[in-house]
Amino acid sequence: MTKSTNKVSVPGFLANGVSAGIKSGDRKDLGLIFSTIPAKVAALFTKNTFKAAPVLIDAERIKRGIAQAVLTNSGCANAATGKEGMADALTVSAAAAKQLKIPEEHLLICSTGVIGKRLPVRKIEAGLGKLVRGLNEFGIEDAEAAMMTTDKFPKIAIRKGIVGAKDITICGIAKGAGMIEPNMATLLTYVMTDALIDAKALNTVFHQVIDSTFNAISVDGCMSTNDTAIILANGLAGNNPLERAQARLQRFREMLTDVLAELAQAVVRDGEGATKFITVVVEGAKSKSDARRVAYSVANSNLVKTAFFGEDPNWGRILSAIGASGILLEKEKVSLSIGNMTVFAQDAPVNLAPARLKEIFQGGNIEVRISLGGGDKSYSVYTSDLSYDYVKINADYTT
Amino acid sequence: MTKSTNKVSVPGFLANGVSAGIKSGDRKDLGLIFSTIPAKVAALFTKNTFKAAPVLIDAERIKRGIAQAVLTNSGCANAATGKEGMADALTVSAAAAKQLKIPEEHLLICSTGVIGKRLPVRKIEAGLGKLVRGLNEFGIEDAEAAMMTTDKFPKIAIRKGIVGAKDITICGIAKGAGMIEPNMATLLTYVMTDALIDAKALNTVFHQVIDSTFNAISVDGCMSTNDTAIILANGLAGNNPLERAQARLQRFREMLTDVLAELAQAVVRDGEGATKFITVVVEGAKSKSDARRVAYSVANSNLVKTAFFGEDPNWGRILSAIGASGILLEKEKVSLSIGNMTVFAQDAPVNLAPARLKEIFQGGNIEVRISLGGGDKSYSVYTSDLSYDYVKINADYTT
Repeated sequence: MTKSTNKVSVPGFLANGVSAGIKSGDRKDLGLIFSTIPAKVAALFTKNTFKAAPVLIDAERIKRGIAQAVLTNSGCANAATGKEGMADALTVSAAAAKQLKIPEEHLLICSTGVIGKRLPVRKIEAGLGKLVRGLNEFGIEDAEAAMMTTDKFPKIAIRKGIVGAKDITICGIAKGAGMIEPNMATLLTYVMTDALIDAKALNTVFHQVIDSTFNAISVDGCMSTNDTAIILANGLAGNNPLERAQARLQRFREMLTDVLAELAQAVVRDGEGATKFITVVVEGAKSKSDARRVAYSVANSNLVKTAFFGEDPNWGRILSAIGASGILLEKEKVSLSIGNMTVFAQDAPVNLAPARLKEIFQGGNIEVRISLGGGDKSYSVYTSDLSYDYVKINADYTT
Repeated sequence: MTKSTNKVSVPGFLANGVSAGIKSGDRKDLGLIFSTIPAKVAALFTKNTFKAAPVLIDAERIKRGIAQAVLTNSGCANAATGKEGMADALTVSAAAAKQLKIPEEHLLICSTGVIGKRLPVRKIEAGLGKLVRGLNEFGIEDAEAAMMTTDKFPKIAIRKGIVGAKDITICGIAKGAGMIEPNMATLLTYVMTDALIDAKALNTVFHQVIDSTFNAISVDGCMSTNDTAIILANGLAGNNPLERAQARLQRFREMLTDVLAELAQAVVRDGEGATKFITVVVEGAKSKSDARRVAYSVANSNLVKTAFFGEDPNWGRILSAIGASGILLEKEKVSLSIGNMTVFAQDAPVNLAPARLKEIFQGGNIEVRISLGGGDKSYSVYTSDLSYDYVKINADYTT
């Protein structure tokens, strides 16, 4: 679905990714996306108390609403590094802005990797020349490669369409969270578009779309130190300007949603050690927050996740997670379906066909549908299973 | 610490455990503890919406404050089994009370095992005769064995002491939760004592002590369908009666705390696949609930748990979990120590000795101490690591 496509490009954007020796071997670890002209910018950042230095810097810079480049290093998160970490980030930022010949405040920087280690500033500075010289219109895949950590495949999504009487392009790239909870790893996603859009509208739409896509695979207030989502809009499409409350803004929102939903699902499919893609749908809730609590109580249960990995049709664990969500439930009204098979309703198990249920658990895409029968609010969460490989990958990440 | 001791007994209590063929092989799966005279009783039950049939029955029966026996089966939780499950539980209860020649309302019943499967009533009825005939004063270990599921070792703790001018005995047995969150599995614990104690005082003290022991390894509102803690006090010690607000009640509380703390720690040490025993201490919090939120944000982080399993000194994951707890933190005041080594303070890493830190992570008992510097409230949680075996054990539990 988001396998890397040849010739991915967005008008007015250049990109590149190189190896600066931050990660072992000659893996790419320094990436750059660059708009040939200053672009409108909007961004969301982690709510973690211990925000990484680059997050603190970017959060200030995006307030101007203008940015032109995003520099990313993998292999080191530059988080929990104190004043030195902040100084390191600013040193790298200054050097990159100089190379790019843009105002430093128009450069955004992101880091991902191990927390608590100093940023290898010299290596990054040494890599900047090659990185900037190599900027090219088809460099997006290299930029994506440079921000991957445990990702098994690159995540790039692109949509083209007519908005405001002109062809516009929206392209997003993402670096996966380890699992679907961003506190499991860092999530970085950047969106490039040539659409001409009002700054306020861009900010509003980006927040709305992130909330319905990436935040549906995350737990609020439970993010990593570095999570960052950025959108740059350089306006080169020359379309009729997109402003709030317009039909054409709605069309832009739909295209952006397609891009980010594709990336968000790719992040789950590439979850560390994931062998299943599980959709948890909660409906009939009194409030969205109730639906959300139930969805996460199920999606985050290690017992549920291991049952899916083991293809063990132990649906009772899902029911227990529903009942443990802490919200007020009328249990006689709750029903649970897995695949298209109802396993529990009216406070009793439904006549089960174990063989059929086993087949459902053996599938790669599994939908868990929970109806609370108490209202009309719903919420969906994408999650993955919990496998040996998840433990293996995370048992020796720094070493 | 809780390895089974020979000749465990409590005056006036008989017990036994047999195989009724509920579990495969000839493993014990039906256990009974019995007081020769009606005893004062207090109990706590899961808060799960989908309480198992036996939990619903017991919650009614203990309101009388009197009970004489607790019957437990493993291999089937009789949860999410609807009206049939309730009828099954009542059938078993009636048969057992008849065998024991006690009023049915003086019998408590507990089940643990797979959720959503009918209770094998015939097998249990067939096993009751042998179970009751075999009741004996040294049968506590057999009763304990009969309630084990994935437990690797039995959990029995006993204390004797002089209270109210007489020797009293307090003995507790527990069936482990899979991991430290009771939503990971069922937790059952029964306490037998010959102390003479007022019903109100017993209820108050038992709730207080469970809160400081078993609830320090659990997440409120996040329990299994069957979690149950019961205490029976038959008064045969003939001590001066224990009533509220007495010095001798305090002594009883201390002994009970010793017994339940030992069992609670044993449950963590025996957590499915556990290779480490981790104590998370949060101090300097504005409120106990803040301290608790931080402690669980760390203790329940899969990334933290896998790092401990991998002996990977990735302390940044702990810091990230602290920052993700969602409570208001003054990050400059937060400090993090692992073992006796401070790794983070004043918003910066402390000069690290990686070799020493690695040694700490290689230990079997690890203390994580988090100081928030914002108040004088504290909270401690016991947890275990997340290993391959946890996944293995839980990937095919029902099958």
